[in-house]
Amino acid sequence: MTAKAVFYHAGCPVCLTAEKMLAGALDPQRYTVEIVHLGTDKSRLAEARNAGVVSVPALVLDSVPLHINFEASLADL
Amino acid sequence: MTAKAVFYHAGCPVCLTAEKMLAGALDPQRYTVEIVHLGTDKSRLAEARNAGVVSVPALVLDSVPLHINFEASLADL
Repeated sequence: MTAKAVFYHAGCPVCLTAEKMLAGALDPQRYTVEIVHLGTDKSRLAEARNAGVVSVPALVLDSVPLHINFEASLADL
Repeated sequence: MTAKAVFYHAGCPVCLTAEKMLAGALDPQRYTVEIVHLGTDKSRLAEARNAGVVSVPALVLDSVPLHINFEASLADL
């Protein structure tokens, strides 16, 4: 049985790669990762808020909301 | 062969649990996680800066610095 991890994002083009990398780096033996795009799936906004998400990207891991910032290099913009 | 993931922090008492949770949630088949306390191990500061770390806690995953914020509940303070 794996725990649920939900990765919420809003399609940020600069950090999408980093976001997917983190979500994909979790141990698949322990976590089932769901990726939710709040920009296109607004029906999940209330759920995200209830989980404590205040900004995206965020990873809710074992019910704890972790907010992730990827410092984009100017070279990437 | 596993890739290197380095988790930098500075002993934040509120978020230490969340930090360790994230570092511990990575796939051990793919990542060897090192946890570095920059408050007590200042010799690693230059390395962290070179990796792009600008704040702690941060996870450097496959050379990409991800800055993590744990929204602490007032109830936890």
